[in-house]
This record gives sequence, C-alpha cells and structure tokens, in this order.
Amino acid sequence: MSVPSDMGVNIDRFWSTIEASAEIGRGRPGGLSRLTLSDADRQMRDVFVGWCKEAGLSVSVDELGNIFARRDGSDNSLPPILIGSHLDTQINGGRFDGIAGVLAGLEVLRRLNDAGHTTKRPIIAVNWTNEEGARYSPPMVASGCFVGKYTADWAKDLVGDDGSRFGDELERIGYGGATKCAAGEIDAYFELHIEQGPILDAEGRKVGIVTGGYPSHGMRASFSGRTAHTGPTPMDLRQNALVAGARWLTAVDDIGWDFAVHDGKATAARLTAWPNKAGILSDTAEAVCDVRHPDPTTTKVMAEKMRRALFESAAKAGCIAKIEDEWQWGGDIFDQELVNLLRNQATRIGANWREIQSQAGHDAYHLALCCPTAMIFTPCKGGVTHNNEEHCEPEDFVEGLNILFHAVIERADRD
Amino acid sequence: MSVPSDMGVNIDRFWSTIEASAEIGRGRPGGLSRLTLSDADRQMRDVFVGWCKEAGLSVSVDELGNIFARRDGSDNSLPPILIGSHLDTQINGGRFDGIAGVLAGLEVLRRLNDAGHTTKRPIIAVNWTNEEGARYSPPMVASGCFVGKYTADWAKDLVGDDGSRFGDELERIGYGGATKCAAGEIDAYFELHIEQGPILDAEGRKVGIVTGGYPSHGMRASFSGRTAHTGPTPMDLRQNALVAGARWLTAVDDIGWDFAVHDGKATAARLTAWPNKAGILSDTAEAVCDVRHPDPTTTKVMAEKMRRALFESAAKAGCIAKIEDEWQWGGDIFDQELVNLLRNQATRIGANWREIQSQAGHDAYHLALCCPTAMIFTPCKGGVTHNNEEHCEPEDFVEGLNILFHAVIERADRD
Repeated sequence: MSVPSDMGVNIDRFWSTIEASAEIGRGRPGGLSRLTLSDADRQMRDVFVGWCKEAGLSVSVDELGNIFARRDGSDNSLPPILIGSHLDTQINGGRFDGIAGVLAGLEVLRRLNDAGHTTKRPIIAVNWTNEEGARYSPPMVASGCFVGKYTADWAKDLVGDDGSRFGDELERIGYGGATKCAAGEIDAYFELHIEQGPILDAEGRKVGIVTGGYPSHGMRASFSGRTAHTGPTPMDLRQNALVAGARWLTAVDDIGWDFAVHDGKATAARLTAWPNKAGILSDTAEAVCDVRHPDPTTTKVMAEKMRRALFESAAKAGCIAKIEDEWQWGGDIFDQELVNLLRNQATRIGANWREIQSQAGHDAYHLALCCPTAMIFTPCKGGVTHNNEEHCEPEDFVEGLNILFHAVIERADRD
Repeated sequence: MSVPSDMGVNIDRFWSTIEASAEIGRGRPGGLSRLTLSDADRQMRDVFVGWCKEAGLSVSVDELGNIFARRDGSDNSLPPILIGSHLDTQINGGRFDGIAGVLAGLEVLRRLNDAGHTTKRPIIAVNWTNEEGARYSPPMVASGCFVGKYTADWAKDLVGDDGSRFGDELERIGYGGATKCAAGEIDAYFELHIEQGPILDAEGRKVGIVTGGYPSHGMRASFSGRTAHTGPTPMDLRQNALVAGARWLTAVDDIGWDFAVHDGKATAARLTAWPNKAGILSDTAEAVCDVRHPDPTTTKVMAEKMRRALFESAAKAGCIAKIEDEWQWGGDIFDQELVNLLRNQATRIGANWREIQSQAGHDAYHLALCCPTAMIFTPCKGGVTHNNEEHCEPEDFVEGLNILFHAVIERADRD
C-alpha cells in the first residue's frame, strides 16, 4: 500500500515515548542526567529495544553499543536509510536533546507499519552511543568510530572523570554487541534534532532545514609550571599553571565578544589544575576552548587568535603550553540533494520553515563523512538546552516529524 | 647547672630527626606529601611522640590532635614557654616547611637535658594539627582553635576534597585527645621556620628575625550562572560561571603585577567549576585569591581592587558573585620585647642576620593573639617551597637553632 501524501505521524504516540524517556535518569527538576553507559542509559536502551521489537523491527547492537532497529524493504540488497540520534544526555540535560531524534526514527517506522507500506529500501532507526561526551570526552564517539574516524579500541579505552573505562561500562550494562562498529554502504542518513539555539523560537517557526554547520575549531591544551608557596614567591618567579589557564579562558572569551556582532562565539568550557589548593601554586592545568563563526575564513582568524592567546597566556604566567588535541568541524557538509528533498517536503506540507546552520556538533557531522546526510531542526523554548529547563511542546515537533516521514519514504522508494 | 653561653645545639642530632621525618609520607622525588591526619601523619606523630618520651618529656594530646611535649621547670606554677610548628605538609611539600620548627623545639629540650639545666619556667614543644590546610581548608586550623578564633566543633566538621571529615580522620588515626583545645596562660611562643622566600638565600644570610607579617587579604568567592550549550548560545545570553572565575583570577594576577615593583603579590590559588565539561557552560564556580603587600595601606588598596574585580568579572560573564569567606592577617603582630631578645642573641653569637617580614601565614600569627610571640627564619635554597625541591643544608639551621636555644633559656629563666 502506498502512503497517503497527507498522512502525518502519530504525535501522541511520539510524545508518549518522550514522556516515558523523561522518567528514566531524572536530573534536576524537569531535566535528565542520563550519562552514557550508566544504569539509567541501560534502562532507557532496554525500553527502546522493547519498543522496537514490539514494532516488529529487527534489533542489532554493535561492539560500541550503537543500537540499530531495522525495518526491511522490498529490495534488501539496496543500501539502507538511517534515521538516528542519541539517547544519552548531559549531566544537567533536558528531555529532548538527541532523544527526540531517536524516537522520531522509531515513530517513522511505526507509522509505516500503520500505513502497511513496505519501502523499497530498508530503513534503520539508530541510537548512537556517547554523543554528549559528558562522561567520556570527546563527544560523538561511537558515530565517529562507525565512519572510521576513530577505532573501537580507542573508544573502549576512554576514561571518564569518575575513573570508569568506556569499555568496562559498556560490558557492565550488557550493550557490548558482537558486530563490528563500521558503516557498510548507506543510502542516506537523516537526523531530527532540537535547534539548541534561539532562532526558530524567536521567529515563531517550527522547522529549520539545516544546510551545514558553523565552521568550528576546538583545542585542548595543557600548561606546565611549578608548585610554590602562594605567599613569598615573587610575581616574576611564579609559574602558576592555574593562572596560565585562567588567562587563556579569559582571552578566548574576549575573542568571542570581539566577533559576537556577526554571531561569532567562543567558549571557555573546561579548566582543571593540580593541586588547585589555597596554599600552593599549581604546576599543571588543562583547558578546553573552542571558537565558531558562520563564515569559515573568520573561524580561521578566531582560531589563530585562540592559538596565539594560548601561548601568550602561558608565557605571562611563566608556564609552558602544549596543544594536546585540536579539532575542526562544520561547513557545508550536508548533501544538496537530500537538503533539497527536505526543502521540497517542507514547502509541500506548508510548514513554517527556514534554512539554518547548526552551531552544535551532531552525529550527523560524522555520518556526512560516509553517506548523503541532512538534518531537520525543531524549536526549543528560548534556545535553552544542556539545562534541565530545556522545553518543547508536542506541536513543536509535528511539522518536523512529517517532513522527516515523507522525505524518508520518498528517498527509500525512489528508483 | 647553668648553660654555658657558648653552648650550641647538637646539629647532627637535629638533622637525623629531619632525615627520619623525610622517610615518612614521601611524595615526589626528595619531597613529602604528608597530608594532615593521613596514615603518614599518624606515623610521623608516633615517631615524634616516641622521641619526646625518650627525652623524658611528658606528652599530651588535645581534642584536635595538637601534641604538647613538656619539660618541667623549677617553678611549674609559672606559665610555660611554647616552641612549635607543624609536621604536616602540602600535597607537593618539602622536607623542612614546618617540620624544622617542631624538631627545633625537640632539639632545644634535648639540649637542655644534655646541659642538665632546669629552667625556671616549663617549656613545651608543640606540633599543631593541619597548619597547611592542604587537606582541610583553611590553613592553621588547630592553632586557630587553640587561641579561640575557631571552635573545635567547627574544625571537626571540615570536609576535604577527598570527602573525608576532619573529626573522623582524627579519631581514625587515634589522635583525638581528651583535653580541650584551648590556650591557658602562656609566657611566650617561639617558632622557627624556613623563610619560604628567596631573600636570606640571595643575601647569603642564615637568620631572619621576623618583625611581623606582610598585611594580607584573602577571599573565597562563588559564582552562579546557568548551564547551556557551548555552541549555539549567543555570547550575550551566556552565564558561564567558569568564565566569571577565570576572569577574576586573571584580574587578580594583573593586580599582583601592578604592585610587584614594591613587592606586592597577588595569588590566584584555586578555581573549581561544575559541570566543567567540554560541551556545557558551567553554572557554578568557586575561587580563592589573595593579595599581600609590605605596606598595610597598599594591601587595602589591592584588596579593594580584588573585590571590584570580583563583581566586574561576574558581571562580564552574566553571573552573580558572592564573597563566601574573607580573611586578613599579618601586620606588626609580634612582641617587641621578644623580638629584641632574638635580635640580641643573634648579635651575641655573631650570626649573619637581618630583620625580615614573613609573607606566608604561620601558626605564630594565631599564637600572637594570646601571648607574646616571635619567629626566626632560616634560609631555603632559592626560596623554593611547597615543592619537592625545597632544599636546606644542616649549616642553614645552626645559627637559627642556637639563637632559639639561648633566647628560650633567657626567657624561661628570667625573674
């Protein structure tokens, strides 16, 4: 049976899965603290797998815990279409970030069941492990392994601030699967996600068709100095690594303000030091900062300023700085054909949409390295996210879900 | 028997106690990491108590673990003289900071035994608990309780970064004594300490007679903001408490440089934040900073700048700052008669000495609140301290110890 062109998803059913998820791994009031590979993550995975099996989907789990729930097509020799996101959250996370995208995939497949329609190509709903990086840094780990950017052994050896090892926790919660974490041939990857910024909400729109990501540049740097007494040590003999780090964070924040007028951003995200005690100067520190700007050339300029500030900050504090890691993402990475498909469906259903650039990292950035990829954004109130007050209403998702539903069918059924 | 005026201490015996101490609670190469109330602290206390008992001293321990090793006088109705310091160290501490002062007290009493001299007043060597504050902040806790600045219950409820409670650890190592932590009438308090600054070493002198302490002003402040995504959140909507803290530390360090020409110092000592993770802005942070200057008026100016910088830093980051604690110390707090006694003995024995101001906090600052107090500094190489490379030679202590020895006798025997 074909799917009526005016058929929409079952928003009540979708919302009931959002609400069930919101009970698992509760954090601060209204929010979630469902760190990857925790007991709460296991509980959520179990519930998700149960839903998928009830829907007649065949579920498999790879060696890094990525969950694939597959609905066969009429020609299973063709590469599948993937719809995915993540069920883990930040330590002070909301109820929608990532979660809505995974449950959107499930709703699309359930709705195809309702319609009794077998697509030509198979479709797979995916939950990626450790998107947030809140427990094991960096973010988007398992999707990165899936596309060959990282190795599974590297991921398993990641250690969290709590001293736990990724691989051990994966086994402990029973989600270390037998299949290799590697992308075969994939026809297309779709991801629906809340915007995590204020634009759609401010403009009263329900949909953003994502054309790409803000070119972004991040760095993790270390500082080395020398412990000494906080009192008698003269200023010019001090080698306080904490001051080196604080100066870098301050300088990076200044860069953000300098470029804010055209929506540039700079983030001083993390600073640790040792011993970091009241009576002693610290001899080591580590910090993570990044810069983002819609224009790639300007991002490069900001990144260069961030780099210079790093060494100047260290020198001012009598310390040595070292860049431990460096990463870039964003740009026009999404597939034009797939983005057009979303544009056309958005127009066809009369959605209130606009084009938008993503400013956050997403698993879709990794998937774009191996297959045609596109994203749909839906609004969240005030752009508040990574916060327990992250808020969406069911009607915020209706248009985005319907665009996803019909775009996936069109892609899956094409000749 | 009277003590010959040219009798000196037994430097080899003193040094052997320094070397024995240096085996207990080893840290980085050459240094110690003997945190207060740890197993290593217990081991050191046991050894010290053993030495005291061998020397015929009567040992008592108060409710906060302060150890008093008493040598009776000929008139025990007179208030005693105390010689003290601390046996605990920083997490990356040296072998002399504090330790030399406690063992100096022991050597003075042992040497009086050698001389067969009974002083008129009793003399007590003291080890103060938790001088460093490296495990339980603030520093100089038990000497503060001794003089009535803090209560014993307050001290027992202090919790360390390791989650342990002062009172529980005190009981665990068996050093929670029965007597109340409170000063009775005390005739005088002497403390010998390494300088912890570079002045004596640079000038090739072996003794500093401490006239007082740099007026100092410290603050512990908290910052509150809001968690949010590190990416899309516009600069002017961010409330990143980590940035507020980093800006304050940077501003305080700048204040130190502005006043460095006349030996002002400012220390950004500690910064913690939550969640302090790469993907999320932090909603809380806490920081400790202080300023010091030889001139009390200038210290006030520096403190006022530090206070303004606190609120400006918070405002710039969209956060709220709160001063959680504030403290001042230093000034001309030592007893002129006692300082003169040290000056005269230094001149009499032909020591290479100078007057000096302390720039660090010491238990002596607390004792000065309840009795005549004075301090003797001895050099340490390059002024390096709170570092495993802290270094002294036996000859660095000879003159200081001999001044202490004869000054204590003169004070104890006076009419």
